[in-house]
Amino acid sequence: MNKIKLDGIFPPLITSFENDEVALDKFADNIQKLNSANLSGYVVLGSNGETCFLTKNEKLSLISKVKSTASDGKIIIAGTGMDSIKETVSLTNDAAFEGADAALILTPSFFKGRMNHDALLEYFSAVADQVKIPVIIYNVPKFTNVVIQPKTVKELAKHKNICGIKSSSTDIAYLGEISNLVNTDFNILAGTASILYAGLCLGASGGILAAANLLPNECVKIYESYKSGNLDEALSLQNNLLAVNKAITATFGVAGLKKAMDWLGYYGGLPRSPLQKLNNNEEEKLKQILIEENYLSK
Amino acid sequence: MNKIKLDGIFPPLITSFENDEVALDKFADNIQKLNSANLSGYVVLGSNGETCFLTKNEKLSLISKVKSTASDGKIIIAGTGMDSIKETVSLTNDAAFEGADAALILTPSFFKGRMNHDALLEYFSAVADQVKIPVIIYNVPKFTNVVIQPKTVKELAKHKNICGIKSSSTDIAYLGEISNLVNTDFNILAGTASILYAGLCLGASGGILAAANLLPNECVKIYESYKSGNLDEALSLQNNLLAVNKAITATFGVAGLKKAMDWLGYYGGLPRSPLQKLNNNEEEKLKQILIEENYLSK
Amino acid sequence: MNKIKLDGIFPPLITSFENDEVALDKFADNIQKLNSANLSGYVVLGSNGETCFLTKNEKLSLISKVKSTASDGKIIIAGTGMDSIKETVSLTNDAAFEGADAALILTPSFFKGRMNHDALLEYFSAVADQVKIPVIIYNVPKFTNVVIQPKTVKELAKHKNICGIKSSSTDIAYLGEISNLVNTDFNILAGTASILYAGLCLGASGGILAAANLLPNECVKIYESYKSGNLDEALSLQNNLLAVNKAITATFGVAGLKKAMDWLGYYGGLPRSPLQKLNNNEEEKLKQILIEENYLSK
Amino acid sequence: MNKIKLDGIFPPLITSFENDEVALDKFADNIQKLNSANLSGYVVLGSNGETCFLTKNEKLSLISKVKSTASDGKIIIAGTGMDSIKETVSLTNDAAFEGADAALILTPSFFKGRMNHDALLEYFSAVADQVKIPVIIYNVPKFTNVVIQPKTVKELAKHKNICGIKSSSTDIAYLGEISNLVNTDFNILAGTASILYAGLCLGASGGILAAANLLPNECVKIYESYKSGNLDEALSLQNNLLAVNKAITATFGVAGLKKAMDWLGYYGGLPRSPLQKLNNNEEEKLKQILIEENYLSK
Repeated sequence: MNKIKLDGIFPPLITSFENDEVALDKFADNIQKLNSANLSGYVVLGSNGETCFLTKNEKLSLISKVKSTASDGKIIIAGTGMDSIKETVSLTNDAAFEGADAALILTPSFFKGRMNHDALLEYFSAVADQVKIPVIIYNVPKFTNVVIQPKTVKELAKHKNICGIKSSSTDIAYLGEISNLVNTDFNILAGTASILYAGLCLGASGGILAAANLLPNECVKIYESYKSGNLDEALSLQNNLLAVNKAITATFGVAGLKKAMDWLGYYGGLPRSPLQKLNNNEEEKLKQILIEENYLSK
Repeated sequence: MNKIKLDGIFPPLITSFENDEVALDKFADNIQKLNSANLSGYVVLGSNGETCFLTKNEKLSLISKVKSTASDGKIIIAGTGMDSIKETVSLTNDAAFEGADAALILTPSFFKGRMNHDALLEYFSAVADQVKIPVIIYNVPKFTNVVIQPKTVKELAKHKNICGIKSSSTDIAYLGEISNLVNTDFNILAGTASILYAGLCLGASGGILAAANLLPNECVKIYESYKSGNLDEALSLQNNLLAVNKAITATFGVAGLKKAMDWLGYYGGLPRSPLQKLNNNEEEKLKQILIEENYLSK
Repeated sequence: MNKIKLDGIFPPLITSFENDEVALDKFADNIQKLNSANLSGYVVLGSNGETCFLTKNEKLSLISKVKSTASDGKIIIAGTGMDSIKETVSLTNDAAFEGADAALILTPSFFKGRMNHDALLEYFSAVADQVKIPVIIYNVPKFTNVVIQPKTVKELAKHKNICGIKSSSTDIAYLGEISNLVNTDFNILAGTASILYAGLCLGASGGILAAANLLPNECVKIYESYKSGNLDEALSLQNNLLAVNKAITATFGVAGLKKAMDWLGYYGGLPRSPLQKLNNNEEEKLKQILIEENYLSK
Repeated sequence: MNKIKLDGIFPPLITSFENDEVALDKFADNIQKLNSANLSGYVVLGSNGETCFLTKNEKLSLISKVKSTASDGKIIIAGTGMDSIKETVSLTNDAAFEGADAALILTPSFFKGRMNHDALLEYFSAVADQVKIPVIIYNVPKFTNVVIQPKTVKELAKHKNICGIKSSSTDIAYLGEISNLVNTDFNILAGTASILYAGLCLGASGGILAAANLLPNECVKIYESYKSGNLDEALSLQNNLLAVNKAITATFGVAGLKKAMDWLGYYGGLPRSPLQKLNNNEEEKLKQILIEENYLSK
């Protein structure tokens, strides 16, 4: 079992639904469109994949589909974390069987007040010991209200089957502290486009970015500009994404992300029940932002 | 399908583990001891049951065991809520098959910022439409960071298969507002011993109380004193429980609850990994509280 | 220096402004109208008094005015707490000179994460040692993000110049715990109408209620019904206030409280800059609530 | 009235106390030591100055002292914001009279839930209209629980007497969004050492850093390395400060900052009552961090 190298841009794929059922063909259509961009791979079953609303069978069918649809060389990362260690190990190994190259594992969060250093060390160690693919720690306090401490990450980074962290917090002091505590072969991935540039400046190797579902080339270009030393260009490109990224994440969430994808030539569709679609007013506001930022014509 | 009447006291049973595996015999032992108290029934797979750490098979085996062990007339309530409507319906109907009389359904919470009136109305309506036993809404912001609004509860209370709410918030304005908005046949259950008396004063019909795992008679007596009009006695009895209740819930959580059960003649044991047991210092503090409050001798 | 007895209902008076300046005559008009109700006294410079926007001179002029306008026997409580002990002592003693009978002292809150047991014990002890009128602790986490712990209140209740607490949290477990820890001569005042009835059931002696600015008799009647043993009536009367109370506190705040006062025959006027008045949509919603609850005709 | 240029590093000076009284001589001693570093100026009456515990006279004496003690060319920034517009204007103009070159104005925060775009636009515009020195907006949600939105900052940046923002949030998406919305002559100052490097990368012109009270040269060197294009060195230097900065801010607060200053040759002393000094255990932990990071020998 070897540590995997994760750099560049990965979209956390949305899950496509028709009549509230998983639509694998629409899902595959999006991937085929994304294949032409210089993305490093795909994340399936992330937060934006509405994974919390899926059954186990649906989850495995999505992994299988992304594996069979992704172009050669794309790394497949599957979000398989649950509070239960048993369930997480079981799903992760099934995901590996379906073709996942790495697992993105949420911090457990039900007992949020108790998920301290010892608990999270135990959780991630136990999972990493038992799964067949490398583990990426997923820190996303917006959804979990749990923050895995930098000292815990430092310890876990020594585990031979834990290869990185996706940090979806916008707290750059947090990302910087982790970057300073781990070796350079530990992959730090920015979890949202608005922190990509600053993350790269502090040692991140790439990003898992919702915005890459609809603007993959724009996201990749930030990364490539940074890597080739064109810092001003990288920052400028990121700035061009800020308003849209805020709209499809913080402001309008998955429903907004999907609606924007519809407008930009992908299949977005509706979120799964009980998540609500945008109302007309929200839809209009989102459209205005896309127009103002020149991603959509009037 | 009829609405069920829920009054009196229900312990949310802990799940017993040995060597980190579910220990059904120890679980049954506790129930047999509790059978002698005048409890109205049992909640299995509540928050204190560490349900988030269990597999589906483990969950069903626990429901089956409580059904076969509970004395006659005890109402069995199973905690079967998950974010996924499909998974929730499936588990709830399996729980009904195993003997559960009602289902305690958590508010979905992954997309906490989006779980507004419309989303929760849709979620609970969809679940209640498809399950074979009555639904009790479970509002527990401490764990979910979601509060189901009183106006949503008012709407849901009209559904013929939604019979009540467990309100684990200590916000009495919230409980009072709900009580004022629903009909008296809608069961309002206080979710922690510290709000039982005030809850009863405002129209609650009983409580689902962690403290009833180890002090069932003391909890029942509060209810009975209130019902027989001895308000001063009821308040005094509740006051006697405050310090212990705080220790086994807010301060030390499930690990504290289990340790206290060990001391009071039940099988507590350890929480499941990754939840941590009390350290020596915490254990000593908990013991002091039980001694000071006269539930344990030195 | 003797402890003062505080029971019954106190309105936390709004501060009247005209052209953004304190309007003492309008302020006095409201008090004269309120004098006819069976209120126990008045709170001046509470949260709803927009005290944070006032200069020291304005504060003292308001205390002086309420003293000269209140009918005989009304207890005058002045909100004089600030983070600085020196400033708090100075203002409190000036308030005493102007006629205040007791001081309502906010928990200091700038360094919110540091306001622990020791800090708050030291703060309130130091203030109480140096001021000439009894101190009422003011716990209002909605505005301070600080909660003074029950064990701290227990200690402070022994101070000969600390006579009570206004608890504006709706957490009834908190109020109940304090009530259980202090002697009966320590005054516990409910901080909002929605917890008045439950508070009285748990040992509170009255309330400081924003709603008493516009519905003084309705608030007093809850208290009197409770005191005369008509519990069902007391609860029913409180239930009648819930929707309006929520609107003029949580939903619309001071701007809503003032607008409702305008409609019910008092002088509400506008909040002081930078606090914003209600927009048309909010105003319409507030009016609908007052109409639905029969406090206003169409 | 002209906009002022703020770049480089400013320490937010602690206020020195002896026997709980302001000790102007000790305060001046610290400034004299700091004068030799290449700092751009001083902030007096910031959060770390325990301004919330000071009287108006004490505040003015501190401004006067820093003015008379600072070496030539140092810019003096005074923290003069309060919720009350009147009080803020009055103190700010007195501060200008005492020699302050600019005013750092906190977002008002008592009615935190109401401090929206319109309220903050009105507040800062009103203050800036009436004060004689340029205004720096101070966004510090850790203490205020208020975040001034980027769109509000964008509007305020057009005011001829508002010259910048101190952003003490570690949310780099926030700082990046503001940087993208304002002109380059609007000064963005990082509010803590852990975000200085990332802040500079995104367009900040410097920082107001607690760490600069005790490690001024180390802080200045990060800035200078960045400015001279030595990015790796700048990042490396910042990384060297991370552990100490966390200890003297998030972990141990002002009491920790002051204790560390004592050890490094400045006068720290005790925080003012009611803020508590470190206990022995905390003091030992802080010392270990300073030793491990090579700022103190064993």
